[in-house]
Amino acid sequence: MEDAIKYAFDFERHMTPEKFERFKAFAADKETPFVVIDLERIAEKYDELHRLLPYAKVYYAVKANPHDEILKMLIDRGCRFDIASVFELDQMLRLGAKPDDMSYGNTIKKARHIAYAYDRGIRLFATDSEEDVCKIAENAPGASVFFRILTDGSGADWPLSRKFGAHPDTIYRLVLQAAELGLDPYGISFHVGSQQRDIGQWDHAIATCRYLFDSLAEEGVHLRMLNLGGGFPANYVSPTQDIELYCQEITRFLEDDFGDHAPEILIEPGRSLVGDSGVLVSEVVLVSKKSEFNQYSWVYLDVGKFSGLIETIDESIKYPIFVDRESDAVKQVILAGPTCDSMDILYEDTKYEMPADITEGDRVYIFTTGAYTTSYSSVNFNGFPPLKAYILRE
Amino acid sequence: MEDAIKYAFDFERHMTPEKFERFKAFAADKETPFVVIDLERIAEKYDELHRLLPYAKVYYAVKANPHDEILKMLIDRGCRFDIASVFELDQMLRLGAKPDDMSYGNTIKKARHIAYAYDRGIRLFATDSEEDVCKIAENAPGASVFFRILTDGSGADWPLSRKFGAHPDTIYRLVLQAAELGLDPYGISFHVGSQQRDIGQWDHAIATCRYLFDSLAEEGVHLRMLNLGGGFPANYVSPTQDIELYCQEITRFLEDDFGDHAPEILIEPGRSLVGDSGVLVSEVVLVSKKSEFNQYSWVYLDVGKFSGLIETIDESIKYPIFVDRESDAVKQVILAGPTCDSMDILYEDTKYEMPADITEGDRVYIFTTGAYTTSYSSVNFNGFPPLKAYILRE
Repeated sequence: MEDAIKYAFDFERHMTPEKFERFKAFAADKETPFVVIDLERIAEKYDELHRLLPYAKVYYAVKANPHDEILKMLIDRGCRFDIASVFELDQMLRLGAKPDDMSYGNTIKKARHIAYAYDRGIRLFATDSEEDVCKIAENAPGASVFFRILTDGSGADWPLSRKFGAHPDTIYRLVLQAAELGLDPYGISFHVGSQQRDIGQWDHAIATCRYLFDSLAEEGVHLRMLNLGGGFPANYVSPTQDIELYCQEITRFLEDDFGDHAPEILIEPGRSLVGDSGVLVSEVVLVSKKSEFNQYSWVYLDVGKFSGLIETIDESIKYPIFVDRESDAVKQVILAGPTCDSMDILYEDTKYEMPADITEGDRVYIFTTGAYTTSYSSVNFNGFPPLKAYILRE
Repeated sequence: MEDAIKYAFDFERHMTPEKFERFKAFAADKETPFVVIDLERIAEKYDELHRLLPYAKVYYAVKANPHDEILKMLIDRGCRFDIASVFELDQMLRLGAKPDDMSYGNTIKKARHIAYAYDRGIRLFATDSEEDVCKIAENAPGASVFFRILTDGSGADWPLSRKFGAHPDTIYRLVLQAAELGLDPYGISFHVGSQQRDIGQWDHAIATCRYLFDSLAEEGVHLRMLNLGGGFPANYVSPTQDIELYCQEITRFLEDDFGDHAPEILIEPGRSLVGDSGVLVSEVVLVSKKSEFNQYSWVYLDVGKFSGLIETIDESIKYPIFVDRESDAVKQVILAGPTCDSMDILYEDTKYEMPADITEGDRVYIFTTGAYTTSYSSVNFNGFPPLKAYILRE
């Protein structure tokens, strides 16, 4: 069963025609491929999240897009940061972020990296295993720790699998162990999976957390924080509910489970903050057919899976794509990248509709590419340089 | 159905114990992760291929590993080069390779890149579509062109799909078209897929080429070259036939189909030349269990899918892995990388046996990592720097 992504491109969902003209004008004289990032859009998203979840501390997931300009703008706005490595830590410190405003959110870390972070003032760590708890106790004595429970990730476009988190029963033991080892068992975290479509996933996770809070309180350990992770959507092809509804429902789940005794709430948005801010500008390299009887044309772009569009693996993330060409007729195409690697196909099962007369040299605008693109680009795949990024200026 | 990769590590298949000691000593004081490349091994492989296929011109697929030292050594040895982009062309020219010794093997290329390559002396281009033939005729007038036929890639660990090549009937038309446009229709190429296990795949492809040679001769177009592509194996976990047998059989297929009138033969080895030369040195970051009842431990390394081991996607390439630890007892583990990305799992369906007491800080040696690793590493995934490479020295 094959889907086709219609070409009836709904600009209203993405930006005003005036804003798109700004993007186009800014991009006009630059060699493709590159991403243009609109900082205003990220600021709007950040403010919106603050307005919708006023009680939550926002820890931006730096890995989603670690561009200096994005991070500086968010520091200025009072955002906090979730870091995945000591390399991200170094970057944040260089940009002036305060250690108190950061969490080391990766459950996989070398002992010497924990010590390195602790030396630089980091006092908040994520964990999900006995071995890691012991390492934190030894290398970051007395630090606050939050414990990540395993969720099944169903309903997410980019699910999180069993790699992270542990079963609630295991977490229960870990919390007690951390307390014994002199750490501060601060709270529980979960991650429902990136680009999560099923808001009910938060309900179940929050209820599990409430159960852990209660059963640990009986042992004299009083957790004080609940980290709701990420999973808020960005604006890809398949529509999601509005962020308002996500926030409203999550607030209701919290009230249902915790009433007036809500713990401190943290969230770790990445994709939802920066995804919509980016437009990737690419150029058509070649349009061809594999045989005269072939139903579909192949459209090869100058950007591919290994130069920024890694999340097209298994065609998981479906980016909205616009070709700036007046054309009523459309055809369904297979989209692929420019390298000699056969894996470097963007969409083959899912056909995209494109203008029927699309041809080499046409500029192609790939929307919602502000998250998980540039930093995921390969250094030198087939000789192609990494994907460039620009900040949109007047 | 789950396989388990036995830990009975067969050093004989990879290198002498003395050579491994050289690797270890060289690697001892360096911060993981990194790949160590043994140039001698590549030279041996190159010489071996020359000996086994003395009639073939070897075009090294630069994309497999574009390290300057590898390329310089191969230039000195008289190797030719297949390039995937103008960026690889620039690199080769910088290193002193001659344009006559290169083919532009990517069937996907911008018109201005064809012109750029032509200006720098490139006279041999691969193609598989009408649109590309027209572009070559316009931007590289009179150049020699070879035409890539579509193969189905079955039998290959890293198959090549329908992205490249065209149906023989389409190729027939393309050859005539190229001749009309003033190009030199030089030959036919195919690629049976990387790490191809079924030698018979070459038989079928060569027979198809013979058919094209004959039918085009009837039209007065006399092709003079046959490019057998790559597909020769490197030494991963699953054994393949010896390279001797591949070469012997391919020679027999050529004799069967072309007799005494064999055309010029080109081959484009990448993986088989450089794969075995590399040892990736990694460190165990964490060993953990997801619950107390879990059968398998998770072993997290400081290298992962997006820092060099991209070919573990779908667990396609199974690298031989050695842990330098005396231990009779083994256990089956799930191997994963260090990032916060759930895709960054190396082997989960296929369990690897590891020493039962494997623990944080253990050095792990991943063999046969000389091809398709370093240059495929991401620039900044989760803040982690790209995979480093060293050339083995005394």
